[in-house]
Amino acid sequence: MTFEQQLQQKIDLKTKPLGALGWIEKLAYKIGSVQQTLSPQLKNPTLVVFAGDHGIAKSGVSAYPPEVTFQMVSNFLQEGAAINVFCKQHQIAIKIVDSGVNFDFEPHPKLIHAKAGYGTQNYLENPAMTGDQLEFCLEKSKGIVNEIAASGSNIIGFGEMGIGNTSSASMIMSSLFDLPIAQCVGKGTGLTAEQLEKKVELLTTAKEKHGKITDPKIILQTFGGFEVAQMCGGMLAAFEQNMLLMIDGFIATAALAIARAINPKIMENCIFCHVSDESGHKPFLELMGEKALLDLNLRVGEGTGCALAYPLIQSAVNFLNEMASFESAQVSNK
Amino acid sequence: MTFEQQLQQKIDLKTKPLGALGWIEKLAYKIGSVQQTLSPQLKNPTLVVFAGDHGIAKSGVSAYPPEVTFQMVSNFLQEGAAINVFCKQHQIAIKIVDSGVNFDFEPHPKLIHAKAGYGTQNYLENPAMTGDQLEFCLEKSKGIVNEIAASGSNIIGFGEMGIGNTSSASMIMSSLFDLPIAQCVGKGTGLTAEQLEKKVELLTTAKEKHGKITDPKIILQTFGGFEVAQMCGGMLAAFEQNMLLMIDGFIATAALAIARAINPKIMENCIFCHVSDESGHKPFLELMGEKALLDLNLRVGEGTGCALAYPLIQSAVNFLNEMASFESAQVSNK
Repeated sequence: MTFEQQLQQKIDLKTKPLGALGWIEKLAYKIGSVQQTLSPQLKNPTLVVFAGDHGIAKSGVSAYPPEVTFQMVSNFLQEGAAINVFCKQHQIAIKIVDSGVNFDFEPHPKLIHAKAGYGTQNYLENPAMTGDQLEFCLEKSKGIVNEIAASGSNIIGFGEMGIGNTSSASMIMSSLFDLPIAQCVGKGTGLTAEQLEKKVELLTTAKEKHGKITDPKIILQTFGGFEVAQMCGGMLAAFEQNMLLMIDGFIATAALAIARAINPKIMENCIFCHVSDESGHKPFLELMGEKALLDLNLRVGEGTGCALAYPLIQSAVNFLNEMASFESAQVSNK
Repeated sequence: MTFEQQLQQKIDLKTKPLGALGWIEKLAYKIGSVQQTLSPQLKNPTLVVFAGDHGIAKSGVSAYPPEVTFQMVSNFLQEGAAINVFCKQHQIAIKIVDSGVNFDFEPHPKLIHAKAGYGTQNYLENPAMTGDQLEFCLEKSKGIVNEIAASGSNIIGFGEMGIGNTSSASMIMSSLFDLPIAQCVGKGTGLTAEQLEKKVELLTTAKEKHGKITDPKIILQTFGGFEVAQMCGGMLAAFEQNMLLMIDGFIATAALAIARAINPKIMENCIFCHVSDESGHKPFLELMGEKALLDLNLRVGEGTGCALAYPLIQSAVNFLNEMASFESAQVSNK
């Protein structure tokens, strides 16, 4: 029997109808496969929130003003945000990265300084970042994730904060999959119908300005988000470390889509934690042949979907390690 | 401001876009409303698994033989089943009730003796239980739940085990909502297409035999399940105690539908934990105007959906109690 057959057999002989634990069984198979063991373990789960500002935010693509980015970073550090509450509940370590916020933070033990700039350029005028800034982002986040792996973590979630970054994600989706902007744009954190129309117009103009781009790194450089680029680099590093990757919402999916274009094998290690209320997210997942664990109408980001899905991932591991088999429990199989 | 307005305001002023935590916010509102406090607490979460045998099981409506009921009860007591693993993970107390299994169990500290008989009658021939047995079931489970409430629990999940009990749930759904059996029947724990056809035929015959029944208690008596009747009684008691009720899958929903027909206000306290892979469950929830938290293709029963959803319910409470407001975190609101 191959290892995969042994793993499937262990799952099938648990005391429940064949396949009747649905997603829990699929997760167990995925985790066992990634870790190449019939008795996987989740160690030191960690969530990293990358934060950055966006030049485009000044053009009115978001319902909130740009200063909310740095204010929310302070909120993360004071443990008052949704992601803090949910990580605390599940003993997930949390790290905050200043990828490029337009603010100078005081040093803080939870804050990692990885600033590529004070916000990106507005891609209505220029590419969001320079080639050097992109390389800085990819390298810096690789170092951050490698350190997390070295500290003994084998499962990592990627969250973000950045007013204007659903626009960035829409531009990436539209460019990677050659789709009209209107199919990739949603109301973000709460735009009105009129504001949404303006957002589609602005982003369509921006896309036309830069012409057809197919190289995933150039897409990332052009429509950026320092935090999106750092998520992408962090995801690639996490895969190299053979960690499990928890993928959050629309923006995290955009970062992953770039990583996937660079290294398609990354998908083997990804758990898609939730499908967001942002309208582009579900089709984005479908374009990559994926479905998500949770559908709770979330549109917060920060990695909240990862933290909320984490206990289900833990359940899959517990199922594999702790549940009795038909034989051990003396229950009649079909 | 009314209490409800204060509760909604507390939710709206948390540091996240308005409504952006979706289901978590709705749950927080529900839990606050039930407990009539802005700072709700979940105390001593408890899951009760009711087990019983079904006369109809001998007619071939299930993929598993009837002895699996008592074998699985033993598995619960030895803590080897899925529900044990998930309850342990979330520190949910678990109680097993022998509502009417066709087996004599040795006394066990976790097993509650509430036997209404050694399995129900086959409703192809007779009503599943007598009027006295129904009253016994409703009263007995009321006592069990009252005791759990008295011990300080304010949230309770209802699970079940009983080979043949998806048939019972289908008969209840079909009778309560006057629907053809075919719309209320699924493959249960794993029937083939041919076996499913036979199940529809058998249950249609059974329904015709008993004629049109509209009284919810008579529906319950006729198509039974001692465990279904005890879930129903337990749910009515939990509502009287103003507990939060975690509703599991198809069979738990059938028990609740009877309880709802008796006391419609019960819905205020119910959290629908998951929508099952059993094909009748989603329309059953829709008939009552409800949607479920999780959709994980589960079809195990035992209360597994409740246990897996519990951390999300806890997240809703933590959200309300622990997350910062725009004001306290000094974050700009729209």
